[in-house]
Amino acid sequence: MLPDIAPVRDYFMMLQDRIVDALEPIDGATGFRREDLPGPKGALSRPRVLEHGAHIEKAAVQFTHSIGTSLPPAATERNPHLAGHGFQAAAISLIVHPRNPFVPTTHANLRFFIVEADEPMWYFGGGFDLTPYYGFEEDALHWHQQAREATGQHYPALKRACDEYFYLPHRQECRGIGGVFYDDWTEGGFEAAFEFTRAVGDHFLPAYRPIFERRMDTPYGERERDWQLYRRGRYAEFNLAIDRGTKYGLQSGRRVESVLASMPPVATWKYAYEPEPGTAEARLYSDFLPPRDWLGIGE
Amino acid sequence: MLPDIAPVRDYFMMLQDRIVDALEPIDGATGFRREDLPGPKGALSRPRVLEHGAHIEKAAVQFTHSIGTSLPPAATERNPHLAGHGFQAAAISLIVHPRNPFVPTTHANLRFFIVEADEPMWYFGGGFDLTPYYGFEEDALHWHQQAREATGQHYPALKRACDEYFYLPHRQECRGIGGVFYDDWTEGGFEAAFEFTRAVGDHFLPAYRPIFERRMDTPYGERERDWQLYRRGRYAEFNLAIDRGTKYGLQSGRRVESVLASMPPVATWKYAYEPEPGTAEARLYSDFLPPRDWLGIGE
Repeated sequence: MLPDIAPVRDYFMMLQDRIVDALEPIDGATGFRREDLPGPKGALSRPRVLEHGAHIEKAAVQFTHSIGTSLPPAATERNPHLAGHGFQAAAISLIVHPRNPFVPTTHANLRFFIVEADEPMWYFGGGFDLTPYYGFEEDALHWHQQAREATGQHYPALKRACDEYFYLPHRQECRGIGGVFYDDWTEGGFEAAFEFTRAVGDHFLPAYRPIFERRMDTPYGERERDWQLYRRGRYAEFNLAIDRGTKYGLQSGRRVESVLASMPPVATWKYAYEPEPGTAEARLYSDFLPPRDWLGIGE
Repeated sequence: MLPDIAPVRDYFMMLQDRIVDALEPIDGATGFRREDLPGPKGALSRPRVLEHGAHIEKAAVQFTHSIGTSLPPAATERNPHLAGHGFQAAAISLIVHPRNPFVPTTHANLRFFIVEADEPMWYFGGGFDLTPYYGFEEDALHWHQQAREATGQHYPALKRACDEYFYLPHRQECRGIGGVFYDDWTEGGFEAAFEFTRAVGDHFLPAYRPIFERRMDTPYGERERDWQLYRRGRYAEFNLAIDRGTKYGLQSGRRVESVLASMPPVATWKYAYEPEPGTAEARLYSDFLPPRDWLGIGE
Protein backbone atom coordinates (compact mmCIF):
# COMPACT_ATOMS: atom_id res chain seq x y z
CA MET A 1 0.00 0.00 0.00
CA LEU A 2 1.24 3.47 -0.81
CA PRO A 3 1.91 5.81 2.10
CA ASP A 4 -0.27 8.93 2.36
CA ILE A 5 1.37 12.05 0.96
CA ALA A 6 -0.77 14.38 3.09
CA PRO A 7 1.37 14.50 6.29
CA VAL A 8 4.53 14.99 4.21
CA ARG A 9 2.91 17.81 2.32
CA ASP A 10 1.75 19.38 5.58
CA TYR A 11 5.23 19.17 7.11
CA PHE A 12 6.87 20.71 4.03
CA MET A 13 4.38 23.61 4.04
CA MET A 14 4.87 24.17 7.77
CA LEU A 15 8.65 24.14 7.31
CA GLN A 16 8.37 26.60 4.43
CA ASP A 17 6.39 28.99 6.64
CA ARG A 18 8.85 28.59 9.47
CA ILE A 19 11.88 29.35 7.29
CA VAL A 20 10.22 32.32 5.58
CA ASP A 21 9.19 33.69 8.99
CA ALA A 22 12.76 33.30 10.26
CA LEU A 23 14.46 34.89 7.25
CA GLU A 24 12.32 38.02 7.08
CA PRO A 25 13.45 39.48 10.43
CA ILE A 26 17.07 38.61 9.58
CA ASP A 27 16.75 40.76 6.49
CA GLY A 28 14.85 43.37 8.44
CA ALA A 29 13.83 45.44 5.42
CA THR A 30 12.10 43.36 2.77
CA GLY A 31 9.47 40.65 2.86
CA PHE A 32 8.88 37.59 0.73
CA ARG A 33 6.53 37.87 -2.21
CA ARG A 34 3.96 35.13 -1.54
CA GLU A 35 2.00 33.34 -4.23
CA ASP A 36 -0.28 30.31 -4.05
CA LEU A 37 -0.65 28.68 -7.44
CA PRO A 38 -3.08 25.76 -7.50
CA GLY A 39 -2.59 23.17 -10.24
CA PRO A 40 -4.78 20.43 -11.69
CA LYS A 41 -6.11 17.62 -9.45
CA GLY A 42 -5.12 19.28 -6.18
CA ALA A 43 -1.56 20.15 -7.12
CA LEU A 44 -0.17 23.26 -5.47
CA SER A 45 2.85 25.49 -5.91
CA ARG A 46 3.72 28.08 -3.27
CA PRO A 47 6.62 30.26 -4.42
CA ARG A 48 8.07 32.59 -1.80
CA VAL A 49 10.68 34.93 -3.21
CA LEU A 50 12.51 37.84 -1.60
CA GLU A 51 14.56 40.18 -3.78
CA HIS A 52 16.64 43.30 -3.12
CA GLY A 53 16.64 42.95 0.67
CA ALA A 54 19.00 44.74 3.01
CA HIS A 55 20.90 41.58 3.94
CA ILE A 56 19.35 39.02 1.60
CA GLU A 57 19.97 39.86 -2.03
CA LYS A 58 17.66 37.06 -3.13
CA ALA A 59 16.01 34.12 -1.45
CA ALA A 60 13.57 31.60 -2.83
CA VAL A 61 11.77 29.18 -0.55
CA GLN A 62 9.53 27.05 -2.72
CA PHE A 63 6.94 24.46 -1.92
CA THR A 64 5.53 22.32 -4.70
CA HIS A 65 3.12 19.45 -4.77
CA SER A 66 2.93 18.15 -8.30
CA ILE A 67 0.79 15.39 -9.72
CA GLY A 68 1.89 13.99 -13.05
CA THR A 69 0.85 11.31 -15.45
CA SER A 70 4.29 10.51 -16.86
CA LEU A 71 7.57 10.71 -14.94
CA PRO A 72 10.20 12.46 -17.09
CA PRO A 73 13.53 10.73 -17.87
CA ALA A 74 15.72 13.14 -15.80
CA ALA A 75 13.87 12.08 -12.65
CA THR A 76 14.50 8.42 -13.24
CA GLU A 77 18.04 8.15 -14.56
CA ARG A 78 18.81 5.61 -11.85
CA ASN A 79 15.37 3.96 -12.08
CA PRO A 80 14.63 3.83 -15.80
CA HIS A 81 11.78 1.33 -15.34
CA LEU A 82 9.78 4.08 -13.63
CA ALA A 83 9.79 6.49 -16.59
CA GLY A 84 6.36 7.13 -17.99
CA HIS A 85 4.40 6.16 -14.86
CA GLY A 86 2.09 8.47 -12.93
CA PHE A 87 3.59 10.11 -9.88
CA GLN A 88 3.13 12.60 -7.10
CA ALA A 89 5.94 14.72 -5.75
CA ALA A 90 6.02 17.07 -2.80
CA ALA A 91 9.09 19.19 -2.27
CA ILE A 92 10.47 22.14 -0.44
CA SER A 93 13.47 23.74 -2.05
CA LEU A 94 15.25 26.85 -0.90
CA ILE A 95 18.20 28.98 -1.72
CA VAL A 96 19.53 32.10 -0.02
CA HIS A 97 21.88 34.50 -1.81
CA PRO A 98 23.05 36.93 0.88
CA ARG A 99 24.29 40.41 0.05
CA ASN A 100 27.39 40.34 2.27
CA PRO A 101 30.15 38.25 0.62
CA PHE A 102 31.19 36.91 4.02
CA VAL A 103 27.80 35.22 4.44
CA PRO A 104 27.66 31.92 2.56
CA THR A 105 24.96 31.03 0.07
CA THR A 106 22.91 28.04 1.15
CA HIS A 107 20.64 25.54 -0.51
CA ALA A 108 18.31 23.01 1.06
CA ASN A 109 15.84 20.60 -0.43
CA LEU A 110 13.49 17.94 0.86
CA ARG A 111 11.39 15.84 -1.44
CA PHE A 112 9.02 12.92 -1.42
CA PHE A 113 8.09 10.89 -4.47
CA ILE A 114 5.34 8.39 -4.95
CA VAL A 115 5.54 6.59 -8.26
CA GLU A 116 2.47 4.70 -9.38
CA ALA A 117 4.38 1.94 -11.19
CA ASP A 118 3.21 -1.68 -11.61
CA GLU A 119 5.09 -2.21 -8.38
CA PRO A 120 4.31 1.03 -6.50
CA MET A 121 7.28 2.90 -5.13
CA TRP A 122 8.06 5.84 -2.89
CA TYR A 123 11.16 7.50 -1.60
CA PHE A 124 12.42 10.57 0.21
CA GLY A 125 15.38 12.70 -0.74
CA GLY A 126 16.94 15.87 0.53
CA GLY A 127 19.74 17.59 2.34
CA PHE A 128 21.39 20.95 2.76
CA ASP A 129 24.70 22.37 1.63
CA LEU A 130 26.70 25.55 2.13
CA THR A 131 28.59 27.62 -0.43
CA PRO A 132 30.89 30.18 1.18
CA TYR A 133 32.75 32.87 -0.75
CA TYR A 134 35.22 33.22 2.09
CA GLY A 135 35.98 30.22 4.26
CA PHE A 136 35.76 30.17 8.06
CA GLU A 137 36.61 26.97 9.91
CA GLU A 138 34.27 27.95 12.74
CA ASP A 139 31.34 28.17 10.31
CA ALA A 140 32.20 24.92 8.57
CA LEU A 141 32.42 23.12 11.90
CA HIS A 142 29.07 24.43 13.09
CA TRP A 143 27.42 23.57 9.77
CA HIS A 144 28.69 20.00 9.77
CA GLN A 145 27.95 19.50 13.46
CA GLN A 146 24.33 20.37 12.76
CA ALA A 147 24.34 18.10 9.73
CA ARG A 148 25.62 15.25 11.86
CA GLU A 149 23.09 15.95 14.58
CA ALA A 150 20.34 15.74 11.97
CA THR A 151 21.51 12.53 10.32
CA GLY A 152 23.30 10.63 13.11
CA GLN A 153 25.02 7.43 12.03
CA HIS A 154 24.22 8.19 8.39
CA TYR A 155 26.26 11.42 8.42
CA PRO A 156 29.54 10.10 6.93
CA ALA A 157 27.80 8.49 3.94
CA LEU A 158 25.47 11.43 3.33
CA LYS A 159 28.31 13.94 3.73
CA ARG A 160 30.24 12.02 1.06
CA ALA A 161 27.15 11.89 -1.16
CA CYS A 162 26.81 15.67 -0.80
CA ASP A 163 30.44 16.26 -1.81
CA GLU A 164 29.88 14.02 -4.82
CA TYR A 165 26.59 15.57 -5.92
CA PHE A 166 27.54 19.25 -5.60
CA TYR A 167 30.55 18.86 -7.85
CA LEU A 168 31.39 20.65 -11.09
CA PRO A 169 33.25 18.07 -13.16
CA HIS A 170 34.31 20.64 -15.79
CA ARG A 171 35.95 22.70 -13.01
CA GLN A 172 37.04 19.66 -10.98
CA GLU A 173 35.71 21.63 -8.05
CA CYS A 174 33.10 21.18 -5.32
CA ARG A 175 30.38 23.82 -5.27
CA GLY A 176 30.98 24.60 -1.63
CA ILE A 177 31.80 22.89 1.66
CA GLY A 178 28.93 20.43 1.35
CA GLY A 179 26.63 19.21 4.07
CA VAL A 180 24.38 16.18 3.62
CA PHE A 181 22.56 14.75 0.61
CA TYR A 182 20.35 11.69 0.28
CA ASP A 183 18.10 10.24 -2.36
CA ASP A 184 15.99 7.12 -2.93
CA TRP A 185 15.59 7.00 0.84
CA THR A 186 13.30 4.30 2.27
CA GLU A 187 15.44 3.38 5.31
CA GLY A 188 13.33 1.74 8.02
CA GLY A 189 10.07 2.13 6.14
CA PHE A 190 7.86 5.15 5.58
CA GLU A 191 7.48 6.35 9.19
CA ALA A 192 11.20 6.19 9.93
CA ALA A 193 12.16 7.74 6.59
CA PHE A 194 9.68 10.57 7.15
CA GLU A 195 11.04 11.15 10.67
CA PHE A 196 14.56 11.24 9.26
CA THR A 197 13.49 13.81 6.69
CA ARG A 198 11.88 15.93 9.40
CA ALA A 199 15.13 15.83 11.39
CA VAL A 200 17.02 17.17 8.37
CA GLY A 201 14.41 19.87 7.77
CA ASP A 202 14.32 20.89 11.43
CA HIS A 203 18.10 21.31 11.52
CA PHE A 204 18.35 23.71 8.61
CA LEU A 205 17.65 26.94 10.50
CA PRO A 206 19.83 26.06 13.51
CA ALA A 207 22.61 25.28 11.04
CA TYR A 208 22.34 28.38 8.85
CA ARG A 209 21.00 31.25 10.99
CA PRO A 210 23.95 31.59 13.40
CA ILE A 211 26.40 31.72 10.48
CA PHE A 212 24.33 34.35 8.68
CA GLU A 213 23.99 36.50 11.79
CA ARG A 214 27.67 36.18 12.67
CA ARG A 215 28.87 37.45 9.26
CA MET A 216 26.17 39.77 7.97
CA ASP A 217 27.67 42.98 9.34
CA THR A 218 31.29 42.28 8.36
CA PRO A 219 32.57 45.29 6.39
CA TYR A 220 33.42 44.59 2.76
CA GLY A 221 34.34 46.47 -0.40
CA GLU A 222 34.54 46.12 -4.16
CA ARG A 223 37.13 43.35 -4.00
CA GLU A 224 34.93 41.08 -1.90
CA ARG A 225 31.83 41.92 -3.96
CA ASP A 226 33.66 41.13 -7.23
CA TRP A 227 34.79 37.79 -5.85
CA GLN A 228 31.27 36.95 -4.67
CA LEU A 229 29.82 37.71 -8.13
CA TYR A 230 32.54 35.71 -9.84
CA ARG A 231 31.93 32.71 -7.60
CA ARG A 232 28.20 33.03 -8.22
CA GLY A 233 29.01 32.25 -11.84
CA ARG A 234 29.95 28.77 -10.63
CA TYR A 235 26.57 28.55 -8.93
CA ALA A 236 24.85 29.37 -12.22
CA GLU A 237 26.99 26.78 -14.00
CA PHE A 238 26.03 24.11 -11.51
CA ASN A 239 22.33 24.93 -11.54
CA LEU A 240 21.97 25.15 -15.30
CA ALA A 241 24.46 22.58 -16.56
CA ILE A 242 24.62 19.92 -13.85
CA ASP A 243 21.85 19.93 -11.25
CA ARG A 244 19.36 17.06 -11.69
CA GLY A 245 16.64 18.99 -9.86
CA THR A 246 16.79 21.86 -12.35
CA LYS A 247 16.87 19.49 -15.33
CA TYR A 248 13.87 17.65 -13.95
CA GLY A 249 12.06 20.91 -13.29
CA LEU A 250 12.63 22.24 -16.78
CA GLN A 251 11.89 18.94 -18.54
CA SER A 252 8.71 18.33 -16.58
CA GLY A 253 7.33 21.65 -17.75
CA ARG A 254 7.14 23.10 -14.25
CA ARG A 255 6.71 26.88 -14.03
CA VAL A 256 10.08 28.14 -15.21
CA GLU A 257 10.18 31.13 -12.86
CA SER A 258 9.85 28.75 -9.90
CA VAL A 259 12.51 26.37 -11.18
CA LEU A 260 14.96 29.17 -11.92
CA ALA A 261 14.17 31.26 -8.83
CA SER A 262 17.35 29.68 -7.44
CA MET A 263 19.52 31.53 -9.96
CA PRO A 264 21.82 34.15 -8.48
CA PRO A 265 20.55 37.74 -8.78
CA VAL A 266 23.84 38.78 -10.42
CA ALA A 267 26.73 36.63 -11.64
CA THR A 268 29.89 37.39 -13.54
CA TRP A 269 32.32 35.45 -15.68
CA LYS A 270 35.96 36.45 -16.14
CA TYR A 271 38.22 34.72 -18.58
CA ALA A 272 40.95 32.51 -17.08
CA TYR A 273 40.73 34.21 -13.71
CA GLU A 274 42.66 32.88 -10.72
CA PRO A 275 42.89 34.49 -7.27
CA GLU A 276 46.32 35.68 -6.12
CA PRO A 277 48.17 33.00 -4.14
CA GLY A 278 48.12 33.55 -0.39
CA THR A 279 44.87 35.54 -0.35
CA ALA A 280 41.63 34.70 1.42
CA GLU A 281 40.14 34.05 -2.03
CA ALA A 282 42.85 31.50 -2.84
CA ARG A 283 42.31 29.81 0.52
CA LEU A 284 38.73 29.04 -0.47
CA TYR A 285 40.15 26.78 -3.21
CA SER A 286 42.98 25.31 -1.17
CA ASP A 287 41.38 24.89 2.25
CA PHE A 288 37.59 24.80 1.88
CA LEU A 289 36.40 23.45 -1.47
CA PRO A 290 38.34 20.15 -1.42
CA PRO A 291 36.24 17.70 0.64
CA ARG A 292 37.38 17.64 4.26
CA ASP A 293 36.52 15.57 7.29
CA TRP A 294 35.38 18.64 9.26
CA LEU A 295 34.36 16.72 12.36
CA GLY A 296 37.47 14.55 12.45
CA ILE A 297 35.43 11.40 12.71
CA GLY A 298 36.97 9.48 9.83
CA GLU A 299 34.73 7.65 7.41
CA MET B 1 39.33 8.73 -48.82
CA LEU B 2 39.16 11.33 -46.07
CA PRO B 3 39.54 14.95 -47.13
CA ASP B 4 42.57 16.84 -45.81
CA ILE B 5 41.85 18.95 -42.73
CA ALA B 6 44.81 21.31 -43.39
CA PRO B 7 43.11 23.83 -45.74
CA VAL B 8 40.07 24.01 -43.45
CA ARG B 9 42.29 24.62 -40.47
CA ASP B 10 44.19 27.30 -42.39
CA TYR B 11 40.98 29.06 -43.43
CA PHE B 12 39.60 29.04 -39.88
CA MET B 13 42.85 30.50 -38.50
CA MET B 14 42.91 33.17 -41.21
CA LEU B 15 39.28 34.06 -40.47
CA GLN B 16 40.03 34.24 -36.76
CA ASP B 17 42.85 36.72 -37.43
CA ARG B 18 40.65 38.75 -39.75
CA ILE B 19 37.81 39.04 -37.23
CA VAL B 20 40.13 39.86 -34.33
CA ASP B 21 41.85 42.50 -36.46
CA ALA B 22 38.46 43.99 -37.37
CA LEU B 23 37.05 44.07 -33.84
CA GLU B 24 40.04 45.72 -32.16
CA PRO B 25 39.73 49.07 -33.98
CA ILE B 26 35.96 49.04 -33.42
CA ASP B 27 36.61 48.85 -29.70
CA GLY B 28 39.40 51.38 -30.02
CA ALA B 29 40.72 50.96 -26.47
CA THR B 30 41.47 47.34 -25.64
CA GLY B 31 43.14 44.50 -27.50
CA PHE B 32 42.55 40.77 -27.50
CA ARG B 33 44.58 38.63 -25.15
CA ARG B 34 46.24 36.12 -27.49
CA GLU B 35 47.28 32.62 -26.49
CA ASP B 36 48.52 29.70 -28.54
CA LEU B 37 48.06 26.44 -26.69
CA PRO B 38 49.46 23.41 -28.52
CA GLY B 39 47.91 20.04 -27.68
CA PRO B 40 48.99 16.45 -28.20
CA LYS B 41 49.63 15.11 -31.73
CA GLY B 42 49.52 18.52 -33.43
CA ALA B 43 46.32 19.77 -31.81
CA LEU B 44 46.13 23.52 -31.31
CA SER B 45 43.91 25.90 -29.42
CA ARG B 46 44.15 29.64 -30.05
CA PRO B 47 41.95 31.56 -27.59
CA ARG B 48 41.54 35.26 -28.30
CA VAL B 49 39.64 37.06 -25.58
CA LEU B 50 38.96 40.77 -25.10
CA GLU B 51 37.52 41.96 -21.78
CA HIS B 52 36.57 45.38 -20.39
CA GLY B 53 36.83 47.22 -23.68
CA ALA B 54 35.36 50.64 -24.39
CA HIS B 55 32.69 49.31 -26.74
CA ILE B 56 33.14 45.54 -26.40
CA GLU B 57 32.48 44.35 -22.89
CA LYS B 58 33.69 40.88 -23.77
CA ALA B 59 34.53 39.05 -26.97
CA ALA B 60 35.93 35.59 -27.48
CA VAL B 61 37.12 34.46 -30.90
CA GLN B 62 38.37 30.94 -30.52
CA PHE B 63 40.13 28.59 -32.87
CA THR B 64 40.53 24.96 -31.91
CA HIS B 65 41.92 21.95 -33.70
CA SER B 66 41.34 18.94 -31.53
CA ILE B 67 42.38 15.37 -32.10
CA GLY B 68 40.60 12.78 -30.03
CA THR B 69 40.50 9.05 -29.64
CA SER B 70 36.86 8.70 -28.59
CA LEU B 71 34.01 10.93 -29.75
CA PRO B 72 31.84 11.90 -26.74
CA PRO B 73 28.09 11.14 -26.76
CA ALA B 74 26.96 14.81 -26.89
CA ALA B 75 28.68 15.21 -30.26
CA THR B 76 26.89 12.27 -31.75
CA GLU B 77 23.33 12.38 -30.46
CA ARG B 78 22.08 12.17 -34.03
CA ASN B 79 24.81 9.72 -35.10
CA PRO B 80 25.12 7.33 -32.18
CA HIS B 81 27.08 4.78 -34.23
CA LEU B 82 30.00 7.25 -34.31
CA ALA B 83 30.42 7.46 -30.52
CA GLY B 84 33.74 6.12 -29.32
CA HIS B 85 35.60 6.52 -32.63
CA GLY B 86 38.69 8.65 -33.18
CA PHE B 87 38.09 12.08 -34.65
CA GLN B 88 39.56 15.39 -35.61
CA ALA B 89 37.70 18.64 -35.28
CA ALA B 90 38.63 22.12 -36.37
CA ALA B 91 36.43 24.99 -35.34
CA ILE B 92 36.19 28.72 -35.06
CA SER B 93 33.70 29.96 -32.55
CA LEU B 94 33.06 33.55 -31.59
CA ILE B 95 30.85 35.62 -29.42
CA VAL B 96 30.70 39.38 -28.93
CA HIS B 97 29.04 40.94 -25.88
CA PRO B 98 28.94 44.67 -26.62
CA ARG B 99 28.75 47.25 -23.88
CA ASN B 100 26.01 49.40 -25.43
CA PRO B 101 22.59 47.70 -24.97
CA PHE B 102 21.53 48.90 -28.42
CA VAL B 103 24.26 46.81 -30.04
CA PRO B 104 23.20 43.17 -30.35
CA THR B 105 25.25 40.27 -29.08
CA THR B 106 26.38 37.94 -31.85
CA HIS B 107 27.60 34.40 -32.10
CA ALA B 108 29.19 32.62 -35.04
CA ASN B 109 30.64 29.18 -35.41
CA LEU B 110 32.19 27.13 -38.19
CA ARG B 111 33.29 23.58 -37.67
CA PHE B 112 34.65 20.62 -39.53
CA PHE B 113 34.62 17.07 -38.26
CA ILE B 114 36.40 14.02 -39.50
CA VAL B 115 35.32 10.85 -37.75
CA GLU B 116 37.51 7.82 -38.15
CA ALA B 117 34.65 5.30 -38.02
CA ASP B 118 34.58 1.92 -39.79
CA GLU B 119 32.99 3.88 -42.59
CA PRO B 120 34.95 7.18 -42.40
CA MET B 121 32.84 10.30 -42.27
CA TRP B 122 33.22 14.06 -42.40
CA TYR B 123 30.95 17.02 -42.24
CA PHE B 124 30.86 20.78 -41.88
CA GLY B 125 28.62 22.78 -39.62
CA GLY B 126 28.24 26.40 -38.73
CA GLY B 127 26.29 29.60 -39.00
CA PHE B 128 25.80 32.93 -37.30
CA ASP B 129 22.99 34.40 -35.26
CA LEU B 130 22.12 37.73 -33.68
CA THR B 131 20.71 38.46 -30.22
CA PRO B 132 19.47 42.03 -29.89
CA TYR B 133 18.35 43.59 -26.60
CA TYR B 134 16.39 46.21 -28.51
CA GLY B 135 14.97 45.35 -31.91
CA PHE B 136 15.53 47.39 -35.08
CA GLU B 137 13.92 46.23 -38.31
CA GLU B 138 16.70 47.86 -40.31
CA ASP B 139 19.32 45.76 -38.48
CA ALA B 140 17.32 42.55 -38.78
CA LEU B 141 16.88 43.11 -42.51
CA HIS B 142 20.57 43.76 -43.08
CA TRP B 143 21.56 40.73 -40.99
CA HIS B 144 19.26 38.37 -42.87
CA GLN B 145 20.16 39.83 -46.26
CA GLN B 146 23.80 39.00 -45.56
CA ALA B 147 22.80 35.56 -44.34
CA ARG B 148 20.94 34.95 -47.57
CA GLU B 149 23.80 36.26 -49.65
CA ALA B 150 26.09 33.79 -47.87
CA THR B 151 23.86 30.74 -48.23
CA GLY B 152 21.83 31.39 -51.41
CA GLN B 153 19.12 28.87 -52.14
CA HIS B 154 19.75 27.15 -48.81
CA TYR B 155 18.83 30.27 -46.82
CA PRO B 156 15.17 29.42 -46.02
CA ALA B 157 16.03 25.97 -44.64
CA LEU B 158 19.07 27.17 -42.72
CA LYS B 159 17.20 30.19 -41.37
CA ARG B 160 14.52 27.82 -40.06
CA ALA B 161 17.20 25.52 -38.59
CA CYS B 162 18.70 28.52 -36.81
CA ASP B 163 15.35 29.52 -35.30
CA GLU B 164 14.91 25.93 -34.13
CA TYR B 165 18.39 25.51 -32.68
CA PHE B 166 18.65 28.79 -30.78
CA TYR B 167 15.47 28.16 -28.87
CA LEU B 168 14.91 27.95 -25.12
CA PRO B 169 12.15 25.37 -24.67
CA HIS B 170 11.68 26.19 -20.97
CA ARG B 171 11.03 29.83 -21.94
CA GLN B 172 9.26 28.98 -25.21
CA GLU B 173 11.40 31.73 -26.66
CA CYS B 174 14.00 32.12 -29.38
CA ARG B 175 17.40 33.35 -28.20
CA GLY B 176 17.41 36.19 -30.71
CA ILE B 177 16.43 36.98 -34.29
CA GLY B 178 18.35 34.04 -35.70
CA GLY B 179 20.42 33.92 -38.86
CA VAL B 180 21.59 30.66 -40.39
CA PHE B 181 22.59 27.33 -38.89
CA TYR B 182 23.71 24.12 -40.55
CA ASP B 183 25.13 20.81 -39.40
CA ASP B 184 26.12 17.44 -40.90
CA TRP B 185 26.83 19.36 -44.10
CA THR B 186 28.32 17.39 -47.01
CA GLU B 187 26.31 19.04 -49.81
CA GLY B 188 28.07 18.65 -53.18
CA GLY B 189 31.08 16.89 -51.72
CA PHE B 190 34.05 18.23 -49.79
CA GLU B 191 35.14 21.06 -52.12
CA ALA B 192 31.61 22.49 -52.45
CA ALA B 193 30.86 22.10 -48.73
CA PHE B 194 34.13 23.83 -47.86
CA GLU B 195 33.36 26.67 -50.30
CA PHE B 196 29.91 27.02 -48.74
CA THR B 197 31.46 27.22 -45.28
CA ARG B 198 33.90 29.90 -46.49
CA ALA B 199 30.99 31.92 -47.87
CA VAL B 200 29.32 31.83 -44.44
CA GLY B 201 32.56 32.78 -42.69
CA ASP B 202 33.31 35.59 -45.14
CA HIS B 203 29.86 37.13 -44.60
CA PHE B 204 30.09 37.41 -40.84
CA LEU B 205 31.91 40.74 -40.65
CA PRO B 206 29.87 42.43 -43.41
CA ALA B 207 26.75 41.29 -41.54
CA TYR B 208 27.76 42.38 -38.03
CA ARG B 209 30.11 45.35 -38.33
CA PRO B 210 27.64 47.87 -39.81
CA ILE B 211 25.09 47.08 -37.10
CA PHE B 212 27.68 47.46 -34.36
CA GLU B 213 28.97 50.76 -35.74
CA ARG B 214 25.46 52.14 -36.27
CA ARG B 215 24.37 51.56 -32.65
CA MET B 216 27.53 51.79 -30.54
CA ASP B 217 27.20 55.49 -29.73
CA THR B 218 23.46 55.50 -28.97
CA PRO B 219 22.97 57.10 -25.55
CA TYR B 220 21.61 54.79 -22.86
CA GLY B 221 21.02 54.73 -19.11
CA GLU B 222 20.37 52.42 -16.21
CA ARG B 223 17.08 51.14 -17.63
CA GLU B 224 18.69 49.90 -20.85
CA ARG B 225 21.66 48.46 -18.98
CA ASP B 226 19.39 46.58 -16.56
CA TRP B 227 17.44 45.13 -19.46
CA GLN B 228 20.62 44.05 -21.24
CA LEU B 229 21.90 42.27 -18.12
CA TYR B 230 18.53 40.59 -17.57
CA ARG B 231 18.41 39.35 -21.16
CA ARG B 232 21.99 38.12 -20.83
CA GLY B 233 20.62 35.74 -18.20
CA ARG B 234 18.79 34.03 -21.07
CA TYR B 235 22.08 33.78 -22.92
CA ALA B 236 23.65 32.05 -19.92
CA GLU B 237 20.67 29.70 -19.71
CA PHE B 238 21.00 28.75 -23.35
CA ASN B 239 24.76 28.24 -23.22
CA LEU B 240 24.81 26.18 -20.04
CA ALA B 241 21.53 24.26 -20.20
CA ILE B 242 20.84 23.77 -23.91
CA ASP B 243 23.71 24.41 -26.32
CA ARG B 244 25.15 21.19 -27.80
CA GLY B 245 28.50 22.88 -28.47
CA THR B 246 28.99 23.75 -24.81
CA LYS B 247 27.89 20.27 -23.66
CA TYR B 248 30.31 18.72 -26.13
CA GLY B 249 33.10 21.04 -25.03
CA LEU B 250 32.61 20.29 -21.34
CA GLN B 251 32.14 16.53 -21.81
CA SER B 252 35.14 16.18 -24.08
CA GLY B 253 37.37 17.66 -21.39
CA ARG B 254 38.32 20.69 -23.48
CA ARG B 255 39.90 23.58 -21.60
CA VAL B 256 36.99 24.91 -19.58
CA GLU B 257 38.04 28.57 -19.84
CA SER B 258 37.90 28.29 -23.63
CA VAL B 259 34.53 26.55 -23.66
CA LEU B 260 32.99 29.05 -21.23
CA ALA B 261 34.68 32.14 -22.68
CA SER B 262 31.32 32.67 -24.40
CA MET B 263 29.58 33.35 -21.09
CA PRO B 264 28.35 36.90 -20.61
CA PRO B 265 30.63 39.09 -18.47
CA VAL B 266 27.65 39.98 -16.22
CA ALA B 267 24.15 38.51 -16.15
CA THR B 268 21.19 38.99 -13.85
CA TRP B 269 18.09 37.02 -12.95
CA LYS B 270 14.91 38.65 -11.66
CA TYR B 271 12.00 36.64 -10.42
CA ALA B 272 8.88 36.62 -12.62
CA TYR B 273 9.94 39.75 -14.45
CA GLU B 274 7.99 41.00 -17.48
CA PRO B 275 8.60 44.24 -19.36
CA GLU B 276 5.82 46.85 -19.31
CA PRO B 277 3.43 46.47 -22.27
CA GLY B 278 4.02 48.99 -25.03
CA THR B 279 7.70 49.55 -24.25
CA ALA B 280 10.70 48.90 -26.49
CA GLU B 281 11.58 46.02 -24.18
CA ALA B 282 8.15 44.42 -24.68
CA ARG B 283 8.47 44.88 -28.45
CA LEU B 284 11.53 42.62 -28.41
CA TYR B 285 9.25 39.77 -27.30
CA SER B 286 6.31 40.65 -29.52
CA ASP B 287 8.04 41.76 -32.73
CA PHE B 288 11.55 40.34 -32.84
CA LEU B 289 11.94 37.05 -30.97
CA PRO B 290 9.10 35.13 -32.65
CA PRO B 291 10.53 33.76 -35.93
CA ARG B 292 9.79 36.12 -38.83
CA ASP B 293 10.26 35.96 -42.57
CA TRP B 294 12.45 39.08 -42.56
CA LEU B 295 13.14 39.04 -46.28
CA GLY B 296 9.53 38.37 -47.29
CA ILE B 297 10.54 35.48 -49.47
CA GLY B 298 8.21 32.84 -48.02
CA GLU B 299 9.53 29.39 -47.34
